[in-house]
Amino acid sequence: MSDVRIAGVGLTPFGEQPERTGRDLFAEAALAAREEAGVPRDAYEGVHYGNFMGAFAERQGHQGPLMAEAAGLDCPAMRHESACASAGIAVRQAVRSIRAGEHDVLLAGGMERMTNLSTSRVTESLAIAADELFEVRSGMNFPGAYALMARAYFEEYGGSREDLAHIAVKNHANAVPNEYAQYRREITVEQAMESLPVATPLHLFDACPITDGASAVVLVSDEYAEEHGLEAPVSITGSGQGGDNLALQDRDAFSRTPAAEKAATAAYEDAGIGPDDVDVAEVHDCFTIAEVLALESLGLFDHGEAITAAREGKTTRDGSLPVNLSGGLKAKGHPVGATGGAQVVEMTKLLRGDHANSDALSDPRVGVTHNAGGTVASAVVHVLEVVE
Amino acid sequence: MSDVRIAGVGLTPFGEQPERTGRDLFAEAALAAREEAGVPRDAYEGVHYGNFMGAFAERQGHQGPLMAEAAGLDCPAMRHESACASAGIAVRQAVRSIRAGEHDVLLAGGMERMTNLSTSRVTESLAIAADELFEVRSGMNFPGAYALMARAYFEEYGGSREDLAHIAVKNHANAVPNEYAQYRREITVEQAMESLPVATPLHLFDACPITDGASAVVLVSDEYAEEHGLEAPVSITGSGQGGDNLALQDRDAFSRTPAAEKAATAAYEDAGIGPDDVDVAEVHDCFTIAEVLALESLGLFDHGEAITAAREGKTTRDGSLPVNLSGGLKAKGHPVGATGGAQVVEMTKLLRGDHANSDALSDPRVGVTHNAGGTVASAVVHVLEVVE
Repeated sequence: MSDVRIAGVGLTPFGEQPERTGRDLFAEAALAAREEAGVPRDAYEGVHYGNFMGAFAERQGHQGPLMAEAAGLDCPAMRHESACASAGIAVRQAVRSIRAGEHDVLLAGGMERMTNLSTSRVTESLAIAADELFEVRSGMNFPGAYALMARAYFEEYGGSREDLAHIAVKNHANAVPNEYAQYRREITVEQAMESLPVATPLHLFDACPITDGASAVVLVSDEYAEEHGLEAPVSITGSGQGGDNLALQDRDAFSRTPAAEKAATAAYEDAGIGPDDVDVAEVHDCFTIAEVLALESLGLFDHGEAITAAREGKTTRDGSLPVNLSGGLKAKGHPVGATGGAQVVEMTKLLRGDHANSDALSDPRVGVTHNAGGTVASAVVHVLEVVE
Repeated sequence: MSDVRIAGVGLTPFGEQPERTGRDLFAEAALAAREEAGVPRDAYEGVHYGNFMGAFAERQGHQGPLMAEAAGLDCPAMRHESACASAGIAVRQAVRSIRAGEHDVLLAGGMERMTNLSTSRVTESLAIAADELFEVRSGMNFPGAYALMARAYFEEYGGSREDLAHIAVKNHANAVPNEYAQYRREITVEQAMESLPVATPLHLFDACPITDGASAVVLVSDEYAEEHGLEAPVSITGSGQGGDNLALQDRDAFSRTPAAEKAATAAYEDAGIGPDDVDVAEVHDCFTIAEVLALESLGLFDHGEAITAAREGKTTRDGSLPVNLSGGLKAKGHPVGATGGAQVVEMTKLLRGDHANSDALSDPRVGVTHNAGGTVASAVVHVLEVVE
């Protein structure tokens, strides 16, 4: 089975770009990835594209063919929608196709346009990632759901709002040098603690922002890369997906995310590595507590241990395991349907050594990305490795 | 490479069921397919699910995990959205996974809930399958788009409204014995001709109805079927997808659907057959003219020849190539995100000999299904064969 080489990556800046159409955003990311890859147009065999709320944001469904055209490509295309894990699944499906020997060159990524909608409309639109019948009608929204998860975690393992604040501080610090990030400014623990409450115990600075943006990666087979002498020093060597019941009420516990545990186990097995081999991680910190749950699900920390990781400096840029050097969803921004692809873009640059935060890493070999949908009813984990 | 065996199929009745939730509809189809397959619950490794307009119909995105749960399964799930080709792509992705040797047992299908919305809201929702910026804002809707395609066809190849009326008459006649069909009543050419104009030259009886319904198929590897002694006499031996620009204005011609030609060529090559081998076809007749374009794209008729096929009896139940024995989208109904799966369900029964219209076929061996999205910007073709 062939490994999948990352031949090119592209991002738009993440942030408020309400005047730009979705196709404009995706074209920018896709053309950047295509330019970096240098693969001829007619070699592309398919586009796997993630988008979540295009029906509301632009009244635009059926975005697969639209985005293939925006990317300047003439090949079959399809949209994947699994809430905030849409682009992670798009990348995963492309990886699987290449590893199965079906295709040699695919474009994968995603796009979300959000800030052209009012905040209340965005909140309504995001809510469709939860169970409408049993959660949304009862007044549940995502800050509320993650607040419940934080409370359950605190109750089971301990932890405090201040522990969470250190995660926000870390991710904001990481975003400062990242030219693609939405919030390139440091915050303090005090600012995070004093920010407005959203859903106890989560405050405003525990939450990621609303963001427009797109991501794209050009994936090629090992054979294609060798044959065409492509510079593609990073491979996706492992991929895993896990699922869970959509509604929180149907879970065994709120303090763990078993879908991500399953995805991680599968991805590690696929890559033939374990959590001890991981040098750097990009995880789905839609809320600060989500970073904690992600790190524990990935086996990078024992249950109950990740809550203090940022505070103790273990996951900061000078720690033993830097997490979300991109700035994470928290500070880099979270254009929902693009995020899973953006994590792969950021990780590729970190492993290649051409990321704005590459100086935080010393000869990194193995990175993981963790992308989640809803309250982790969908989870996708990828293992990226430097190949030589 | 393993062929993919169809171990079980399930449908809901198609029609107006506004009081039923999406999960209820999909559960019915999925549980029927699961019961027929008899595969144990823990053998299922994934759910590939198609849905188009759930964001509008039920304010429900992220339906992959929701529908896995509705189907009683605990495995990763994902939603595919490519407008009216959503379930065709869901089936195709499942087929590819099994053929690649990644999985042995998958559930695929789709669901659409439509009649709980007002007609104007459904029309608005369907329009998101077209290009919002360059088609919908200019007043284009799907009856209008297919009317343009019909006019272009008439101009290039000839043909008349009466030719199209014979297609509607044929598909209504086929639906009469099909207990799952929405319109189980015959119509006459005169009724079709005299029905209200919608978009010249298309009248009301040229169009498929608005429908609630779901479809599901259990797909297993050859090896799994043999090892477990499953009765699964029909295989999916070929699968192909094609794409085109989303907006009609960006096409070379309106009188052909090259995305479907590409999908058909790929599917035939995959199966090692040609159009001459096809005994029976289920095609995407969202409008009568679409059946004509489909049959020509599939190579079952030369360009300009399919327009009179129904009128001349070639595609009727007693013709040389029966088309849409299910009743087609026209009379069986068209729950958008379920249709591509429903075509596979109907074809499986036709090839197994347990369809309400099986008496129209004598020892059929090869069937094709043709599922299209938008004005055929997405197309998926599957070849099904009886294995012995």
